[in-house]
This record gives sequence, C-alpha cells and structure tokens, in this order.
Amino acid sequence: MSFTTNYLVPFLADNAFLLVITFLVMLLARHLLRSTTPPPPVATPGSNKNMRASKTDTERVEPEDDDNNEDEEDLLPPIWPDDLKQIPYIHTRLTVEESEKKSLQFYNQMNARRSVRFFSSDPVSRTVVENIIRTAGTGPSGAHTEPWTFVAVCDPDVKLQIRDIVEAEEEINYTKRMGKQWVADLKALKTTWVKEYLTEAPWVLLVFKQAYSTLPDGRKRTHYYHEISTALASGLLLAAIQYAGLVTLTSTPLNCGPALRSLLDRPQNEKLLLLLPLGYPSATATVPSLKRKPLEDIMVVV
Amino acid sequence: MSFTTNYLVPFLADNAFLLVITFLVMLLARHLLRSTTPPPPVATPGSNKNMRASKTDTERVEPEDDDNNEDEEDLLPPIWPDDLKQIPYIHTRLTVEESEKKSLQFYNQMNARRSVRFFSSDPVSRTVVENIIRTAGTGPSGAHTEPWTFVAVCDPDVKLQIRDIVEAEEEINYTKRMGKQWVADLKALKTTWVKEYLTEAPWVLLVFKQAYSTLPDGRKRTHYYHEISTALASGLLLAAIQYAGLVTLTSTPLNCGPALRSLLDRPQNEKLLLLLPLGYPSATATVPSLKRKPLEDIMVVV
Repeated sequence: MSFTTNYLVPFLADNAFLLVITFLVMLLARHLLRSTTPPPPVATPGSNKNMRASKTDTERVEPEDDDNNEDEEDLLPPIWPDDLKQIPYIHTRLTVEESEKKSLQFYNQMNARRSVRFFSSDPVSRTVVENIIRTAGTGPSGAHTEPWTFVAVCDPDVKLQIRDIVEAEEEINYTKRMGKQWVADLKALKTTWVKEYLTEAPWVLLVFKQAYSTLPDGRKRTHYYHEISTALASGLLLAAIQYAGLVTLTSTPLNCGPALRSLLDRPQNEKLLLLLPLGYPSATATVPSLKRKPLEDIMVVV
Repeated sequence: MSFTTNYLVPFLADNAFLLVITFLVMLLARHLLRSTTPPPPVATPGSNKNMRASKTDTERVEPEDDDNNEDEEDLLPPIWPDDLKQIPYIHTRLTVEESEKKSLQFYNQMNARRSVRFFSSDPVSRTVVENIIRTAGTGPSGAHTEPWTFVAVCDPDVKLQIRDIVEAEEEINYTKRMGKQWVADLKALKTTWVKEYLTEAPWVLLVFKQAYSTLPDGRKRTHYYHEISTALASGLLLAAIQYAGLVTLTSTPLNCGPALRSLLDRPQNEKLLLLLPLGYPSATATVPSLKRKPLEDIMVVV
C-alpha cells in the first residue's frame, strides 16, 4: 500500500471542493497581478525622462489603446479645415556675406546676455513687454497648438505674494528637499532662497504651458509636445528680452506651480514652466565669472 | 439542529488545513497586488508630465533617498570653485524709445519665420552654421551645465541614412503607432512620412540633450533641467537661423533617437531632442495658411 492510494487519493476526494476554490483563487491572483503590474516605461510625444539619466535606451512609443480602438465618430473635429490653403512662402535671400555678418552680429548680441539677479526698480514700458511676448508667440509648436500663456505681473502686491510663495518653497529646497549635492552644486553661485528681485523688478513674467485645450463640447484636445514647444517659445522670449536691452533671470521655481497658478487664477490645463523677473540691472549688479563652453565642445560636424 | 452544527462545524474541522492555505494564498495575492501597484506620479526637477493632461495637480517634489542619505564624503566635487568671483555686470541702457523700436523690429523679424518643408539644395556657409550654433550655446542652463550637443550634418550619405531612419519610423507613426486622432490633427498640414527635405537641405542639425556628465572617476553628475535648458537653447537657435536669413523645420522625430544617436556615434548620456534641416527655401516653397493667436490670447497682465 502506497502513500498515494492510502492518503493522497482520499485526501483529494474529500477536499475536491476546496482544492478547486484554492486553484481559482490562485488564478484570480495571477490575473490581477498581471493587469496591475506597471508596463515598462514608454515615451509618448511630449513626455520625457526623469532628470536622473535613464539606464535603458527605450525611447519607443507604443500605440495607445484608446487611440487605436476609437471609432471615426469619436475623433475630435480637425484643428484646421481640410481645405487649409498652402500659400507661397515669401523669402528674401541674403548674400552669403550678409548672412555671415548678421549671424555674427546676432551671436555677439546674445552672447552679452547673462542671468541677472540684481534688478533696478526702474519701470519698463508695457509696449516693450508686449512686443517681447508677441515675439515669444511666434515660436513653432506641435500641430500649431500654441500651447502657452504669458502672465506679466506688474502689480506690487501680487509680486510680493509671488515672492512669498517662491521663498517659502525655496527655503525647503535648500534646507531639506533637494539634498546636499544640489546645494553644493549651487554654492559658488551664491544663490539663496531670498529672491529680492521678485519685488524689485518692474515686471515678473510667468510662462505657463497648456497640456490640453477644451472643446465647446467638453472634450479635451491633447497638445502634443507642449512642454518643448513652450520652452522653445521661451528661448525666443529670452532673445527678445536681450534684443530690447533688458535683463532677466531664467528660473524654474520648484513646487511653486500650483500655488502660483492659483494666485494668478490660471485654469486647470496650465502648468508653470518658467518664472522670469524682467527689467534693468541695478547699478551695482554683479554676475558670477563663468565662461561658456567653446564651440568645439558643443558642435560636431559630420 | 442547525445548519451550523450539522454541516458547517464538521466541514470547517475536516478542511482546516486547506482553509488556512486558501487564506494564506489570498494574503499573498493581496500583498503582491499592493507592492506592484504603480505609485502616484511625482515630479522631480527636469521631469515632466505625460502629454496627456494629468488629472491631479501634484507637482510636488519628494526628497530623494540617495541624496538625503549621502555623506559629505560622497558629494561630487563642486562644479565651480568656492571662490568663484562675482564680477560687475556691464550693461548699456537703451532709451525707452530705442527699446520700443528694437523690440518691435525683432518681433517683425521673428514673426516672418515659418516652418518650411521645401528646401533648396543651395549650400550654406559653414561660418553661418557655426555662428548659429554659437548663439544657441549662449542659452541659460540649470546650474550652468550647458547640457547640449549640436550635430551639424552636411555629408550627403549621412543625410540619406538619417532620412531612411526617420522615414521608416514616421511611416509607422502615421499608419499604426499614433492613432487616428494624431493623423487627423496633422491632415490639413499635408505632412506625410516622406521627408525629402532631409536630403535636399544642405545641413541637418540634430540637437542632443545630455542627461548627465561623467567625472574622471566615473561618477555621474546629474544635469538639472537638461531638457528645458536644451529646448531654451534651441529657441535661440531658431532666432539665430531666422536672423541669418535661413529657414528650418522644427521636428521631434518620434522613436528615431536611439538609431540616430548610434548613427552619429553619440555617447550614452545624450538623447535626441530636435532635428532641423537648415538652408534656403526652394523657389516654389509653400506653407499652410495659418494665423498666429492674437496677443490677447497669449498674454495676461496682472
């Protein structure tokens, strides 16, 4: 008489019901595990990686189920009419010499730009601010969605509230949140969480990126590449500021987005990308003695 | 005699062993489910949200363990010496009238820019390309890391290989990967996966962002906000291209990054951000008849 016939078969026969239940529980658990295991990270347009370098090189985009399963009826109306005209592109060609001269001239002008932390309170004409923002608005954007809002603050009370919000968060960044490496990396720049320029400068510009827009029927239209587009427009903004003889400080206030958005009454689809004081430098303004990389360190010709 | 004493108690007594096992299996399943459920997304500097709008408003940054637990000994060497000098910032102030005039002039010049898809094969002087890239290199960057590389391709064979890579991926984007909404959104622009301009234009610029740099001892230095910084620099690049009388098309080739990086032999810390043909428009170049948003739709004054 073996173990099998003496014990196992009677055991299985007596407990068949519970064995089946156990098996079903395990099946269910396995199914749940599969459906909740996060998929490997995939890039979608407009998303990007964590600041810490990704160890893999998967920049692949997977089809998104809700896009692929949607019926024609569910498509949003086209952004532009199907019969959108193509018009001739009018272009005045410069000579090679003119082009070389102008490109050098523009380089020299932009190369004089520095991030300035010490502002005069002298006013800046609203016309200039408008022209600068108009210039930023000429930037290219994913599917021409122009996913940006530039809030120009000159009201002293609102500037003070902005400063309070930014300083409170920055103090946490310096003392707790960001770690010693971050503080060490910034040490020689002598930056602190005190941001006097936010109340001294006559204007504070807040650049918001719009993740989506909302159609009249309530559906949302995704703005492809809205962060890159808004950052490109902000590059044009910096060029325009420099060209107009003004100075700024390009800042990315960490964690202040929601509070500043709420203060400025911006809608849910907007998130803060950059905060830039705008004005003239103070008479005693200094900048750290930094050099830029030489051309051969940033350019490769193939 | 009740159901409980007649049936349930004997049943439980007989099957205690399997009941315990079933309970343990359920506990295990619950534990596994919890540990694999993805945590809510948190933002870290330089990271950003998926292109689909996030429904929550959590832009909070959590301290990162490896930063907070690190000892002083583990800190990377400072980027700059502690005695980095502050030097006076030299600035020539324009009059209000000059500033208004120059800002309008620059707006008009930038507003004439269009994304052009039809290129002449006429050559562009390397000096101009260098000046344009030098200008991009004047952009601000997180902790002045200058996290960018501009690869300027003029070799016809390499341009052809770039075109092959981009067209192969773009065909998948249009036919499979991106869904009908994406294709519908682009339809009126009459773009396709055929990118003739990649071989016609005399230059193709590839902008790479550097997620980190590597120290001589092999440790990695994180580049804070490397994507935003590189996009800002690319905004200056666009301004410089326009100022020099040339045209480009700002493109973000989806999924081509790894293949193009490998083709151009770029290191592991670099990822492709933008790809821009550079040159003169063809004699018959057209652009879609699009308008830009008026100032009041992109600017808010507070």
